[in-house]
Amino acid sequence: MAEFMTETEQRSPAVPHPGTAGERRGRTGDADAGQAGGHPERHPEARLEGQEAVALLERTRTLVDPELRAALESLPGSMRRIALYHFGWQHADGTPARGNAGKAIRPALVLAAATALGGPAGRTAAVRAAVAVELVHNFTLLHDDVMDRDASRRHRPTAWTVFGTADAILAGDALQALALRMLAEDPHPASGPAAARLADCVVELCAGQHTDVDMERRAPGEVTLDEVLAMAEAKTGALLGCACALGALYAGADGEDVAALDGFGRQAGLAFQLIDDVIGIWGDPRRTGKPAGADLAARKKSLPVVAALSSGTEAAAELAELYDEPYVSGDAEGIVRTALAVERAGGRDWAQAEAADRMARAVQELSRAVPAPEAAGGLLALAEFVTRRSG
Amino acid sequence: MAEFMTETEQRSPAVPHPGTAGERRGRTGDADAGQAGGHPERHPEARLEGQEAVALLERTRTLVDPELRAALESLPGSMRRIALYHFGWQHADGTPARGNAGKAIRPALVLAAATALGGPAGRTAAVRAAVAVELVHNFTLLHDDVMDRDASRRHRPTAWTVFGTADAILAGDALQALALRMLAEDPHPASGPAAARLADCVVELCAGQHTDVDMERRAPGEVTLDEVLAMAEAKTGALLGCACALGALYAGADGEDVAALDGFGRQAGLAFQLIDDVIGIWGDPRRTGKPAGADLAARKKSLPVVAALSSGTEAAAELAELYDEPYVSGDAEGIVRTALAVERAGGRDWAQAEAADRMARAVQELSRAVPAPEAAGGLLALAEFVTRRSG
Repeated sequence: MAEFMTETEQRSPAVPHPGTAGERRGRTGDADAGQAGGHPERHPEARLEGQEAVALLERTRTLVDPELRAALESLPGSMRRIALYHFGWQHADGTPARGNAGKAIRPALVLAAATALGGPAGRTAAVRAAVAVELVHNFTLLHDDVMDRDASRRHRPTAWTVFGTADAILAGDALQALALRMLAEDPHPASGPAAARLADCVVELCAGQHTDVDMERRAPGEVTLDEVLAMAEAKTGALLGCACALGALYAGADGEDVAALDGFGRQAGLAFQLIDDVIGIWGDPRRTGKPAGADLAARKKSLPVVAALSSGTEAAAELAELYDEPYVSGDAEGIVRTALAVERAGGRDWAQAEAADRMARAVQELSRAVPAPEAAGGLLALAEFVTRRSG
Repeated sequence: MAEFMTETEQRSPAVPHPGTAGERRGRTGDADAGQAGGHPERHPEARLEGQEAVALLERTRTLVDPELRAALESLPGSMRRIALYHFGWQHADGTPARGNAGKAIRPALVLAAATALGGPAGRTAAVRAAVAVELVHNFTLLHDDVMDRDASRRHRPTAWTVFGTADAILAGDALQALALRMLAEDPHPASGPAAARLADCVVELCAGQHTDVDMERRAPGEVTLDEVLAMAEAKTGALLGCACALGALYAGADGEDVAALDGFGRQAGLAFQLIDDVIGIWGDPRRTGKPAGADLAARKKSLPVVAALSSGTEAAAELAELYDEPYVSGDAEGIVRTALAVERAGGRDWAQAEAADRMARAVQELSRAVPAPEAAGGLLALAEFVTRRSG
């Protein structure tokens, strides 16, 4: 691993698009967690792009929420209650809540891709596809939380902790059906190919989640970096790619452009996952809402950790020893030592360089289908938004 | 309850179609379990109809299995392995198995409905829809087994007991996606409406399973007969109705005929569930493969039990007392007393009369869309096949 540290240690994971060399720093967050909102940025250009992304996300919510909500309201009572809770539109007792359904990154990508390739008419046509993608994303969250026994999501107790495992599984099943129904009843000529593509993506997401669950059961030394990258592409990249591809399909794009948009979303998704994993170790708890080193305490086989473990360095051996022992609650010094071992073994630099590389590939894919910078702007702003570093 | 006992005690649940008055008796089995196969029947006409149904089921397997198998083979390795195990085409270790994927009642209904309304061309066109329905059915089995903690299915350990809960959930998710993909990529003009209808059906199945899980947690006295009937319609009737409706759609039928076929399948599905519940109490273990009274030992709120409990009779009070106490393993005499209480409270007669009534309604619905007896024959033979009494 030492060799690519030297190659890449100066590189930044920020979007390397024309005329914006240099680092960009700002708030980084989970692509889902929390609300879209302006936060002070250190770099004026980043602030401008952040504002563009925030405006896109807000407009997406305005376009998507009424259709999304109508779809959820169409469910039978038992399923509706769980779905509205999961999306943050109801409390557990069924009373209305303010709503905190995440940042709507995926539907925003659908609409931005449709706009980039089909203008405002493309965007209008693609609203149902945007809703379908958001429904699929949330179906997988409901099921993943059951499998991973995760107790909280978007700062609230997960649906299975409130309604039980059976109901969380059933509500997820119903959301998948709703998603594909959105497309099935859409008379747009792209709806059939879009549904086939979204269904393929669901299968890929399932395979990715299987690998994730399986890898967490294996010893750290048995997991290769290629496996973790493939898992991240299936679990995170696939749906971001599918979102962009669906937008392109609804804009009437040809097969090559659809593939290019899929590639853009996949690479941007991998960049996001790499940065998210960096934040899971070194993120500022005040900005991330998670305790620092939470992923290390959970002995998670995140990308920087597996990169570090497979570096063949002395620090890798130290890290392997640390990861062999379960975390002792409250052992802050142990977390600091583990984070330092990952860093010394090159895991942090590798992840940041790899993220920059993935963003460069994403931009390259995008330029194949959307050469005009002004048309590509929305997609780039969104990609930048989800991959900004916490510094 | 006493009043409808007098009204209906002479009626038989057999199909009351033209020219075949009188009772039919024969083997009754789970609509899914086991293989289709000829068993000796007591009545020559029933034997003839049974043979027609068996021939239809065999032809269905011939038409559907290659497409079904190709769909499963298209899955990524991890998901494919679980799916092929669940369908009985592989052992747990991945070696080939002879296959025991159930009787294919639902795909047979799709093809029989398409034939009834569109002839042989209709049948050929509807093969993909038949595969989609079978995939949806099996996705719900995978998930229901997880929720109900059922350890065996089709005489083999359930997928979750072999591969774990997470993988069984994921394989179910993937099968739902495959089902809707089958329709999404089908150029037939009915594929869009069929996909929308199948997705709606999935939502109804989810709501039905929710009610089932919920009811099993409640005290027997808190569950009404209407609730159990509504649950059975959602859990069993909906997919049989959807299967028939999809066949009709692929035959190019109009909205009224599609609705009539849906009604036929729903009512036949309810008749099946009623008879299945009767067998769960009084069935001959040599023919059903289940111990007699298994549903009573599990204190299941099946249709005859809830009908008996809500009869207002002395026997109902005795049954309520018996159901209040958990079953003591090996207490055969207790099971006999419980079965007798259900019978004396009118539960058995009600269920058989209600089944006959539902079959009559099914036949009436069918005759709206398919008046010619020779065209309706396949659907009637299948309905008869799944609802034959064990005597």
